[in-house]
Amino acid sequence: MNIILFNETDYCQDKNSIRLSDYRFKHISSVLKSRKNDTLKAGLINGNIGTGKVLEITDSYVDLSIVLDKRPPSPLPLTILLAMPRPKFLKRTLKHITVLGVKTIYLINSFRVEKSYWHTPALKQAAIKEIFLNALEQACDTVLPELYIESLFKPFVEDRLPAIIQNTIPVVAHPKNGMSKVITSGKHVTLAIGPEGGFIPYEINKLKECGFEEFKFGDRILPVETAVPSIIPLLIQ
Amino acid sequence: MNIILFNETDYCQDKNSIRLSDYRFKHISSVLKSRKNDTLKAGLINGNIGTGKVLEITDSYVDLSIVLDKRPPSPLPLTILLAMPRPKFLKRTLKHITVLGVKTIYLINSFRVEKSYWHTPALKQAAIKEIFLNALEQACDTVLPELYIESLFKPFVEDRLPAIIQNTIPVVAHPKNGMSKVITSGKHVTLAIGPEGGFIPYEINKLKECGFEEFKFGDRILPVETAVPSIIPLLIQ
Repeated sequence: MNIILFNETDYCQDKNSIRLSDYRFKHISSVLKSRKNDTLKAGLINGNIGTGKVLEITDSYVDLSIVLDKRPPSPLPLTILLAMPRPKFLKRTLKHITVLGVKTIYLINSFRVEKSYWHTPALKQAAIKEIFLNALEQACDTVLPELYIESLFKPFVEDRLPAIIQNTIPVVAHPKNGMSKVITSGKHVTLAIGPEGGFIPYEINKLKECGFEEFKFGDRILPVETAVPSIIPLLIQ
Repeated sequence: MNIILFNETDYCQDKNSIRLSDYRFKHISSVLKSRKNDTLKAGLINGNIGTGKVLEITDSYVDLSIVLDKRPPSPLPLTILLAMPRPKFLKRTLKHITVLGVKTIYLINSFRVEKSYWHTPALKQAAIKEIFLNALEQACDTVLPELYIESLFKPFVEDRLPAIIQNTIPVVAHPKNGMSKVITSGKHVTLAIGPEGGFIPYEINKLKECGFEEFKFGDRILPVETAVPSIIPLLIQ
């Protein structure tokens, strides 16, 4: 945890200080071993970043005096469409996406996504929020990504996608063909990443009809949890 | 598993076929559900890639007729020096490194590496080989990386590192300072990645004295398992 994140509801009445008694208190008390007058990095979820100065620390809570004087890091100019990964890779992949600063995520369907994946408890709202918060606490960011679940491929691509990719450079990562370099010149990118085994030709064609270009990354077949952090930075230069 | 990897010792006497009865047989039989005359991707460890045609499949083994006619993908022109990560991140990070095609890895010490990390069973030779093989089976590669364990920072940097970085571009990833872009023009790169919390100033200075330049990647603090796959592709363009 590189920053202590808190909600409006954590504020004491004066709105200048917060009281924490949950896992964040335990981290401050047991890992950081903070004492009175120590200063920690703190941030309001979806708000500014600054410092929290320890006013009081007891066996059960800590009070921090809060000053928020900095904007959080800029969002990455990239939207990701991710074919729903195997549940054991979902958490790690969402963590990569969040620590890198992506703020808009579409989990989409594909022929090679097993139907059972959509029923994983990892997709529950509370589980997703926990992944996002942990990743923001690591990255020193405050802004929660927006996650959209799109479990039907064709209606998503035909009805929703044209508006999503407007004014962006739409790119689909494809292990077999495509450009080996994308010149984005700072423009917002929409990146689609397929499932294990890749999008099927029908899906690639639907994406290309919509305006996507294929991007080939190396000769090796990468698992989604490597492909995602490897490809995103190449597209935001 | 995207390729069936085997050893010289798996060859039958004729040297044109192999017999498998372990996890690879189970994968061919239960996951791929291969039948007689099916053709699979196969590769000799540290050798060529080609095909294995099913000659016979029983309840306990499979015989494959082997033709190896292609070179494995080229090694990535990058050597990595990785401050020994927390054991739970070691496996995933070595997997990222291997699927991306890095062939030379130094696990190095740093002030912020906890001494206990060096005693993890994950560092045993058999455990490391299993990580590498799984990653190569994913990536469709055959060449095992070389892993060197360097548990003393100063003697490593002073005595061994000058020869390692010769004819390479030495870069240390640093979250605070440095160039935001490295022009490598296809030259071999030596990339050093620090521990959680980063290298201490003494260590950064030692690396700089040796010829390293700092490379800053974004405003967010990345965990090692995201930093490694995010930074490597940026340095091999």
